[in-house]
Amino acid sequence: MNTNNRSDLLPPDWAFEFHGHRCPFMPLGYRMGRLALTRLGVEREKDHALHVICELGDGHPQTCLMDGIQIATGATFGKALMEKTDWGKLAANFWYPGKTPIRYTLKASFLDEFGKLEFFAYRKRGTQPSQIPEPVGAAAIDWTLEQSDETVFAVTDREDFEYLPPASSFVRRLCSGCGEYVFERYTRLVNGKDVCIPCSGYEL
Amino acid sequence: MNTNNRSDLLPPDWAFEFHGHRCPFMPLGYRMGRLALTRLGVEREKDHALHVICELGDGHPQTCLMDGIQIATGATFGKALMEKTDWGKLAANFWYPGKTPIRYTLKASFLDEFGKLEFFAYRKRGTQPSQIPEPVGAAAIDWTLEQSDETVFAVTDREDFEYLPPASSFVRRLCSGCGEYVFERYTRLVNGKDVCIPCSGYEL
Repeated sequence: MNTNNRSDLLPPDWAFEFHGHRCPFMPLGYRMGRLALTRLGVEREKDHALHVICELGDGHPQTCLMDGIQIATGATFGKALMEKTDWGKLAANFWYPGKTPIRYTLKASFLDEFGKLEFFAYRKRGTQPSQIPEPVGAAAIDWTLEQSDETVFAVTDREDFEYLPPASSFVRRLCSGCGEYVFERYTRLVNGKDVCIPCSGYEL
Repeated sequence: MNTNNRSDLLPPDWAFEFHGHRCPFMPLGYRMGRLALTRLGVEREKDHALHVICELGDGHPQTCLMDGIQIATGATFGKALMEKTDWGKLAANFWYPGKTPIRYTLKASFLDEFGKLEFFAYRKRGTQPSQIPEPVGAAAIDWTLEQSDETVFAVTDREDFEYLPPASSFVRRLCSGCGEYVFERYTRLVNGKDVCIPCSGYEL
């Protein structure tokens, strides 16, 4: 399969609006997410089946990858379908009921070449993405599209990957401390009364 | 301020495409996010200043609120600007450098009335949101727009709310185990070699 000039793997315009700026990592995550859906043989998630467990963390760049994955797959943080392990790695695991889980990562060899682009010189000087000249960001995105999927991504089947979606309950209680609702899984007992975690004084 | 029929607080069409279905909680989160931006006096976040710490958790409904907040504020999970405390509460704290943090929650009195709508009968029977008849979801969204901001939301200033964005570093190492890159904050040492957390065998 010729994977060059895959403009079909560019996110729609609204994806950039959602994300807030035009960096190359959101589009890379979008591409990863699209490839993952194809490999799993599933549609973009409307409800709550697909789960994506990202291996990224905090306090490092390139986390924007995860917005692209949310956008492509529909496995959004708000639907509780995306989480991260805090491992500081540019990889994500895709889990779907009845399918073999898969893991995508950005290859180190790709990242080495990618990091030479002008976009990263701006970022390392501390320039926020929205302040980088638009052609510089566009050039970085275009460059990624010239690289084949095999150049950019490594993918592995993860038969060993275990994930159990949490059971869901609609039951909730009014916290006797603050008077706010708390779902039952997070309700705690203090002196025989239902309270939320912050009112309980417990840590968890 | 007359807050009835606030169709200006409806998310754009692409927001529903991002989210994947037409439930009333994504739009409520969007509205909460818009109100929070106004109260903080800040624009939608293009880069990395605004942080939203949600009080929701897993395994309960109505987390879709968080997608609406991402969409309205630009404080996305992918930009590492949104996290959750796992408290199972329908509330979110909005933090911006130099501003007094604020907390929004859905009032219990609002949730009591809201829960009587037909949409929730479907959900409690286990119907996934995308399978609920479209007019039922639309009626639930329309009903929320008829409620004033004061009926729906409680908001408080949180001078006591402390948040420290993590320091960011572009430095990374190649893991001597798997050969993948890992950002330095998450790099561990095993037998004097740099490794990533999963290769280290350490838990954190």
